[in-house]
Amino acid sequence: MNPQIITNMWLFHRLVGNEIIDMVSDEHLDFRPWEGAMTLKELALHIVFSTHKFAETVQLGTTVSSTVEKEVNTAEELKQLVHEVTEKTKTILEGLTEEKLKAVVDATRVIGTYLPGTSLLHIMRDHEIHHKGQLFVYARMIGLENLPMFMKHRL
Amino acid sequence: MNPQIITNMWLFHRLVGNEIIDMVSDEHLDFRPWEGAMTLKELALHIVFSTHKFAETVQLGTTVSSTVEKEVNTAEELKQLVHEVTEKTKTILEGLTEEKLKAVVDATRVIGTYLPGTSLLHIMRDHEIHHKGQLFVYARMIGLENLPMFMKHRL
Repeated sequence: MNPQIITNMWLFHRLVGNEIIDMVSDEHLDFRPWEGAMTLKELALHIVFSTHKFAETVQLGTTVSSTVEKEVNTAEELKQLVHEVTEKTKTILEGLTEEKLKAVVDATRVIGTYLPGTSLLHIMRDHEIHHKGQLFVYARMIGLENLPMFMKHRL
Repeated sequence: MNPQIITNMWLFHRLVGNEIIDMVSDEHLDFRPWEGAMTLKELALHIVFSTHKFAETVQLGTTVSSTVEKEVNTAEELKQLVHEVTEKTKTILEGLTEEKLKAVVDATRVIGTYLPGTSLLHIMRDHEIHHKGQLFVYARMIGLENLPMFMKHRL
């Protein structure tokens, strides 16, 4: 599978998650559905930074702990950051070579094992879909309506 | 991709969803996190019957409206049904030929378009992961703890 197809298959979901984030307001950021859950802000950041780390792991062959998470205090800051990280992740994914995709990477620090790049990208995508599903529940619980379909079929 | 790999990549998620369903009790069946949401029972049935319909569509080349949904009144009945449908879906997926996987199927009645079998199976799987993510939120909201990881990495 070539890097552009991989990127698009991920964007089918990322763009939907971003649409939901774009609908939230300041008062929603700290919403959590049960005590101990991630807040909406934490969930949004978890999605984009985890995916970025997975992609970086495939790019570099190992996980680096370099991701600097900016402080986010407003919905506007959250939206900006989410779109900014989306662009950075997209650049990494589009630039992956066939060699990188096939190579076994050290993902011990993200999922405790070594595995081929493409397999890690599958897990990256599944992880994002899982949490984006949760984001839909958060979104409805804070009263958002007219949510997008769970995925796009074309870009 | 051969049918067994496709089946396993789906089971990585289905088995986790089933583990959660196996933890619920009668009083949880009608829980819903917001007014208008699917109840826990409805969400569980939506996951297994939608996936089964997607798989059947690839098997038959078109969607048949034959799925008979049994009435479910207790957690025990829900668990039995979920495991029963899982086995049936597994049998269909394992039996898909290379020919069926490549053939364009009429999925207009499930997602409004025609597309190759493998593409529909990707959407089937994404759809299940999306809703299983939501099931995790439901599970925590009804007080379940020690939930499994969001996916298995081996069977």
